[in-house]
Amino acid sequence: MSRTLAVGTYSEEADAALSETFDPVRLAAIADLASLDETTRAGIEAVAYKGGGKPFGPAEMDLLPKLGLIANFGVGYDAIDTGAAQERGIAVTNTPDVLNDDVADFAIALWLMQRRGTDMAGRWLRDGRWASEGPPPLAHTASGGRAGVLGLGRIGHEIADRLAAFKMDVHYYARSEKETPGWTFHPDPVDLAASVDVLFVALKGSPETAGFVTREMIEAVGPGGCLVNIARGNTVDEEALIAALQDGRLGGAGLDVFVGEPEVDPRLMALPNAVLQPHHATSTHECRAAMGRVQRDNIRAFLDGRPLPTRVA
Amino acid sequence: MSRTLAVGTYSEEADAALSETFDPVRLAAIADLASLDETTRAGIEAVAYKGGGKPFGPAEMDLLPKLGLIANFGVGYDAIDTGAAQERGIAVTNTPDVLNDDVADFAIALWLMQRRGTDMAGRWLRDGRWASEGPPPLAHTASGGRAGVLGLGRIGHEIADRLAAFKMDVHYYARSEKETPGWTFHPDPVDLAASVDVLFVALKGSPETAGFVTREMIEAVGPGGCLVNIARGNTVDEEALIAALQDGRLGGAGLDVFVGEPEVDPRLMALPNAVLQPHHATSTHECRAAMGRVQRDNIRAFLDGRPLPTRVA
Repeated sequence: MSRTLAVGTYSEEADAALSETFDPVRLAAIADLASLDETTRAGIEAVAYKGGGKPFGPAEMDLLPKLGLIANFGVGYDAIDTGAAQERGIAVTNTPDVLNDDVADFAIALWLMQRRGTDMAGRWLRDGRWASEGPPPLAHTASGGRAGVLGLGRIGHEIADRLAAFKMDVHYYARSEKETPGWTFHPDPVDLAASVDVLFVALKGSPETAGFVTREMIEAVGPGGCLVNIARGNTVDEEALIAALQDGRLGGAGLDVFVGEPEVDPRLMALPNAVLQPHHATSTHECRAAMGRVQRDNIRAFLDGRPLPTRVA
Repeated sequence: MSRTLAVGTYSEEADAALSETFDPVRLAAIADLASLDETTRAGIEAVAYKGGGKPFGPAEMDLLPKLGLIANFGVGYDAIDTGAAQERGIAVTNTPDVLNDDVADFAIALWLMQRRGTDMAGRWLRDGRWASEGPPPLAHTASGGRAGVLGLGRIGHEIADRLAAFKMDVHYYARSEKETPGWTFHPDPVDLAASVDVLFVALKGSPETAGFVTREMIEAVGPGGCLVNIARGNTVDEEALIAALQDGRLGGAGLDVFVGEPEVDPRLMALPNAVLQPHHATSTHECRAAMGRVQRDNIRAFLDGRPLPTRVA
């Protein structure tokens, strides 16, 4: 009988590795948990969770009486009710670090694409307008200004390191001042937003950070500024963001995450100043393979009774 | 009578500045030079040249008997026959340095976009496939590998500085070894291409560099590699590039320049592994304004009999 349940759609390689290591029971979505028979559920000790943002709460946990580990695929585990897990003695692990570079690279890409108008220019070329009408409209310089990083965790730090090479003066907000190579700490996030040309949202996804980026902060970035979000859709007040982009109170945005994703608000799609990507910041073969390894390492350690490599709750 | 002729289409701001400073005669294209009456042509001492790659050769020079300066708008002045200019005592200036950051930023953007599949993923989202089919296919990690810079001039150096922040091991080819922060010199460009995951073409456009990037070099970059060209379309053997992209001997390309631009070979447009931009690397309001200032500074100095700030021939 299998001790492991794998939830979600994995790549072919990750799928093969899971099968070989744990021969898990499989579910496409956690919502289907009740469809598993009671005997199967009763045997599950560990869940390999790739939930696509769907909540894993007390109701789901109670359907798995022997559950001792939820091994999340991803660094953000805000979909998992860690309080409910703790009450039940269920450990939670994530897949940190192995995705920092990919996410930071992607944040920089979103910024460059927005400022330099690459979506517009690429379409201009492909529509034959370069040949028939001449060069596309001018865009804006990216480097050499001031950048703000909201949340100087591991990913935020990687973003800031890259920004420095683009001759950006780096500012940041964090709960406390950090040791940095001369970056400017702002204890007030609105003050940070008002001080920079581009604001990178790199906060941890959690109930506490929902709505953290307010209308006031968005407007503080301003008409000449750009907001990049690689955190969570709900970290930013999306209604306020759309309104500010529509009427020019915010210059532009590069967004990888959305409230209600994979649905994307059609008003965002209509905006020429918004670069949109489908939560693609870790979508590389290399990163997903590394994330899968960390997830399996945690399950292996748990089943062997060893300490969990990347426990978060 | 005007001493200055402005060739090409300038931005509104640059146009106004030219008018205010020189009240120039205007031409959309150098090909129309003969359409100016002889008296007007006889008065022209300086040309503000924004030629869109169209050649400025001896025939054109001979239509302007008093010409003493061609002030090129752009760092690359390969469209101007400098030998013919020298024979006639005509100085040539360009607009260096002010565009280095924009071009280097853009080279990095092309690389990130190609490796991370942002064109594909953006279309996937906008076509509604994220919601209906799930996440797009995985792409590839950009950072943490080995990068080659072909031509370590001012722009190449800026590209390399940025690459180092992406944890790339930097390699380069130049005519001679340079003082660098530990970057690896390759006296053989094919050897450079074979040593890296991404090759940035940052050579100066000139008759000598036409076809510099050969089929052998393209294949040395290889099936897992990427070629980024922000130099000149003809710096790369475009036929060999297309063939290698079509059959997978080269993994991908990020191209801002093309043989025969603004026409783009339709075979390139059909390739999913090629990111295409319409010679957009300096297309920012900020950069074009700075280039215009340098161009006008040269004309002003020439008309005043002072040394030319950025003379190249």
